[in-house]
Amino acid sequence: MNDVQPGATHLECTATGERFDSEALHTLSPAGKPLFARYDLDALRGRFTPESLRGRRPDLWRYAEVLPVRDPAARICLGEGFTPLLDAPRFADRIGMGGGRVWVKDEGQNPTGSFKARGLGMAVSRAKELGASAVALPSAGNAGSAAAAYGAAAGLPVHVVVPRDTPRPIVEEIRALGADLQLIDGLIDDCGRVVKQGVEEKGWFALSTLKEPYRVEGKKTMGYELFEQLGGRLPDVILYPTGGGTGLIGMWKAFDEMEALGWIGAERPRMVTVQASGCAPMVRAFEAGASFAEPWRGAATYASGLRVPGAVGDFLILRALRESGGTAVAISDAEMAEWVAHLGRDTGVFAAPEGGAVAAAAARLRASGFIGSDDEVVLFNTGSGLKYVGMEPV
Amino acid sequence: MNDVQPGATHLECTATGERFDSEALHTLSPAGKPLFARYDLDALRGRFTPESLRGRRPDLWRYAEVLPVRDPAARICLGEGFTPLLDAPRFADRIGMGGGRVWVKDEGQNPTGSFKARGLGMAVSRAKELGASAVALPSAGNAGSAAAAYGAAAGLPVHVVVPRDTPRPIVEEIRALGADLQLIDGLIDDCGRVVKQGVEEKGWFALSTLKEPYRVEGKKTMGYELFEQLGGRLPDVILYPTGGGTGLIGMWKAFDEMEALGWIGAERPRMVTVQASGCAPMVRAFEAGASFAEPWRGAATYASGLRVPGAVGDFLILRALRESGGTAVAISDAEMAEWVAHLGRDTGVFAAPEGGAVAAAAARLRASGFIGSDDEVVLFNTGSGLKYVGMEPV
Ligand SMILES: Cc1ncc(COP(=O)(O)O)c(C=O)c1O
Ligand SMILES: Cc1ncc(COP(=O)(O)O)c(C=O)c1O
Repeated sequence: MNDVQPGATHLECTATGERFDSEALHTLSPAGKPLFARYDLDALRGRFTPESLRGRRPDLWRYAEVLPVRDPAARICLGEGFTPLLDAPRFADRIGMGGGRVWVKDEGQNPTGSFKARGLGMAVSRAKELGASAVALPSAGNAGSAAAAYGAAAGLPVHVVVPRDTPRPIVEEIRALGADLQLIDGLIDDCGRVVKQGVEEKGWFALSTLKEPYRVEGKKTMGYELFEQLGGRLPDVILYPTGGGTGLIGMWKAFDEMEALGWIGAERPRMVTVQASGCAPMVRAFEAGASFAEPWRGAATYASGLRVPGAVGDFLILRALRESGGTAVAISDAEMAEWVAHLGRDTGVFAAPEGGAVAAAAARLRASGFIGSDDEVVLFNTGSGLKYVGMEPV
Repeated sequence: MNDVQPGATHLECTATGERFDSEALHTLSPAGKPLFARYDLDALRGRFTPESLRGRRPDLWRYAEVLPVRDPAARICLGEGFTPLLDAPRFADRIGMGGGRVWVKDEGQNPTGSFKARGLGMAVSRAKELGASAVALPSAGNAGSAAAAYGAAAGLPVHVVVPRDTPRPIVEEIRALGADLQLIDGLIDDCGRVVKQGVEEKGWFALSTLKEPYRVEGKKTMGYELFEQLGGRLPDVILYPTGGGTGLIGMWKAFDEMEALGWIGAERPRMVTVQASGCAPMVRAFEAGASFAEPWRGAATYASGLRVPGAVGDFLILRALRESGGTAVAISDAEMAEWVAHLGRDTGVFAAPEGGAVAAAAARLRASGFIGSDDEVVLFNTGSGLKYVGMEPV
């Protein structure tokens, strides 16, 4: 299928640019910042083209040349990625689009019902390829069940630590997939402390968001897919429900790679971060003009994936929003629930609250004029509504 | 994409062979039996080939030439079909396969989390194309939410009638998708009586299993996919959790079509019907050597999709089992739950109880020798475990 050997050439610190060997297990850089995998894009230019993708497998491994896993046998696949991009004309009418279009990227059709499958599929595959013997992560829930699934498929032990009030469907899913599960009175950062202890005492390899280099590589494939599924262009606006921000950062990275590959020019979609009113550290930092975000205190929202008080990739998120001419929006739980209902009736997609948040944000930004009536807009529904049954807006 | 115009040439009664016009709305034949859509397979032979599929869209519409929808614009698509076929080596070891292989077809990754999306996507598309103004169906649950989704996407009103004790996630999903929902004290046949009344009094078009000709057309694509995903061959054994049996009947029909198209010869996989011990009308009829099945009394199982006391396609199911050298197996709820856990730990798939039933049946049939150690076996996990959270084995 490919001429150029898959795999990264090296890792690079996102703050200092310092280089590291990609063939050893890594966490954050010495500067305490995320590492990005880099590829020989010059060599791939003209060979790894949109045309070359035709006829490839309908999952994210179709982009193997720009993914870090070297050995095809090390790709743990449950069918992740290449989710449908659904035209939503009745929703577009609802929010007053004229000639423009709204697309829903339905990530609820991934394995384990959320887009977390992309990142964890990649991270678990790569951790196993590089010799980890057990993996662990703090999670708002969906990342935990995705890790459990890939660990099960790979035969690798998985330790998941989640808040005690994580939605029950997700907790049952993690258990059914055989992971070791700890429920903690606290938020995802408290869960992180428990994982840290396991790393130090038991030799677990931690897969916390952006604290290892490969979840973002899995998530970036959403950017490649948008280009491919729109027939070789990018949308004008992308709305993304942001917790740790891996997907937004990943797509932004993908667009840079696509430019280096000669697929696109310097133009970029306007990137929009959507958060919950009860936990909106990025919105606050964006509005304050800050480069980093202060941790949010007293985080509360039923969109459990957005209950992330602080993000190690904060500066990368804020940079992408600003460089793209994007923005950041906070949505209340009540609005999320209202727009989950609108989305369901207009499109047939039973969305997670995070998807409802994005739909509400689209309506608000259309009303404010940020979204023009002729724009082409992509809404990320990052998970299935089935994962939140029994949860009430707070 | 195609040379030959998509769409059926006519409909044919499965009992008498009598022919009917395919371009009008139809329910059962005058003989009270299901109608099958027929295509000009002779004209398609040599043109609609496995090679011709390369590069097509990764959903069931890739098989457009053998699907009934005529107008490409009438295809209501939420991403249904072309679900992953997952190699399950650790599960294969668990049940004692030697050189053989076990594959899990993970239908939980369909829109609305079950394989019902295939049949209802097709039936709603076709009902709309033929002018229905509202559709209705009795359902064990998953068909109801699938119908709700496609109705929402199509802008067509949907009326769903389900038993009051349908799993809560499914009930919430139907509501979120905006369908008109009635909860009935009774089973799916009691729901059918309510729908019948709506058909007579309100002009609904009923989409009950096999009582209109197109759900089975959507489901048959599972057969085409197996052939394509196995690289141009069929497995030795297919295990399928059977309620109304649309999928089994559909795959059997697909194999006949594939033979007429020249893709395969006369060989067929051994087809295995798996039912719940608490509702096993097909198993009883198969064991009694009967051609039709008596309705099951007092049906009870937490696998709500298998709580189907009687099936209008009973004779078609039983015929496929016998002609293929297959068999029929009943599994208790406790075994289903046990094998959902095994499947989760061995493969990373959080299966519905129906998927657990199939896994349990595979183990039993391997132990009995029906499945040989060198066989290639496909297990259908027909839905996501997320749809059954909160349900307990009975
Ligand atoms: C459904 C859902 N949406 C959005 C998010 C936020 O994703 P990210 O951390 O990549 O910003 C999460 C994270 O848990 C999630 O589960
Ligand atoms: C998850 C699941 N599996 C299996 C079945 C049985 O399918 P069929 O009626 O096609 O035999 C159903 C039907 O509701 C179902 O929902």
